[in-house]
Amino acid sequence: MATLFHVPLSPFCRKVRLSLAEKRIECELIEERYWEKDSDFLRRNPAAKVPVLKIDGRTLSESAAICEYLEEVYPEVSLMPSAPEARYEVRRIVGWFDDKFHSEVTANLVYERVNKKVMGQGYPDSKNVKAGAKAIKFHLDYMTWLLEQRRWLAGNEMTLADFAAAAHLSSLDYISDVDWNRSETVKDWYAKIKSRPAFRSILADQVSGFPPPPHYADLDF
Amino acid sequence: MATLFHVPLSPFCRKVRLSLAEKRIECELIEERYWEKDSDFLRRNPAAKVPVLKIDGRTLSESAAICEYLEEVYPEVSLMPSAPEARYEVRRIVGWFDDKFHSEVTANLVYERVNKKVMGQGYPDSKNVKAGAKAIKFHLDYMTWLLEQRRWLAGNEMTLADFAAAAHLSSLDYISDVDWNRSETVKDWYAKIKSRPAFRSILADQVSGFPPPPHYADLDF
Repeated sequence: MATLFHVPLSPFCRKVRLSLAEKRIECELIEERYWEKDSDFLRRNPAAKVPVLKIDGRTLSESAAICEYLEEVYPEVSLMPSAPEARYEVRRIVGWFDDKFHSEVTANLVYERVNKKVMGQGYPDSKNVKAGAKAIKFHLDYMTWLLEQRRWLAGNEMTLADFAAAAHLSSLDYISDVDWNRSETVKDWYAKIKSRPAFRSILADQVSGFPPPPHYADLDF
Repeated sequence: MATLFHVPLSPFCRKVRLSLAEKRIECELIEERYWEKDSDFLRRNPAAKVPVLKIDGRTLSESAAICEYLEEVYPEVSLMPSAPEARYEVRRIVGWFDDKFHSEVTANLVYERVNKKVMGQGYPDSKNVKAGAKAIKFHLDYMTWLLEQRRWLAGNEMTLADFAAAAHLSSLDYISDVDWNRSETVKDWYAKIKSRPAFRSILADQVSGFPPPPHYADLDF
């Protein structure tokens, strides 16, 4: 059985958890207080980040590299199309969320509001929170624009791009930072992805001191 | 012929330039003042970042997605091994440099010293410069540790991981921020990669107002 060292609201961990669950790879989850830089953990990943996945006798880090590995070694349930142009578009959108969306939105909201408190790093910086709340609007509009042309974010099939995006949005939804009224299109997309069995473990997450709002786990939100 | 919109010292652009050159794909380079958010450029890439590559009638962004695309469509000169475990290791190290090394080192040194001035954003923040100068030591030591076990960073063949690392180090070397005396092992590795024909265009770069030091383009540095 695989083991994933993670923190519940990390979008990078959630993307890997969704990939594992969709591919029906059984995995034990272990919460890792990675910011304490425990020496056992540093040995598993000198980058001192989560996720870290133990699988097939190996210890893997970097969520993008992990997801590509899972795709190559466990291709039965595929999260990547086969044409290079379509694969490019999946990777572009994964990069969009894990880089641009992360720095403009997730870091400004989830990290300010939750991680800082959990890590004992003080109070949210309201300048950052404000910037995040403003930036998410642009991103929801960009998603709407994409989803008006395609059934899923990177094309007409569900792919890793949808999981990457849903990983970020679900973490933000846990702290009520997504305005689902902004776009019916994005809400419909999230409803589809939220109802997948792979999403169940994420909807059951609980962060001590931060109870999720009732709509978080509700499929009819 | 392909066209790459780039800025000379961007490590992400340099990684793509090295891939293109190693694969002998002819490419015209166009400098793009992306921070001015010109509307033509935003149409090419709504993320408002470089590199942007026009190739095969498509407009591609996100350097990681571009490099995977080039690998899949132009595999004759390959920068990726074939075994999934080895491919994982290449992607892990590319991620290490483009994420961790970038935020800890490149952003603190190249962006503070060069980009800020070019973009008219003021003077370097000495706190950041100091943090970058400290962090690069740890990274050079990590590279030394890797290169003592393997001929190249991700294994015994040269891969995209070496280009990603060399892209960052060459940008830093342009502003004399790499202490080559710290590790003979890293210096030998850089000498090997620097002498490849694919590196020539990078060694010829000139940024107005920032002349490179004489050792920058010297193969015997």
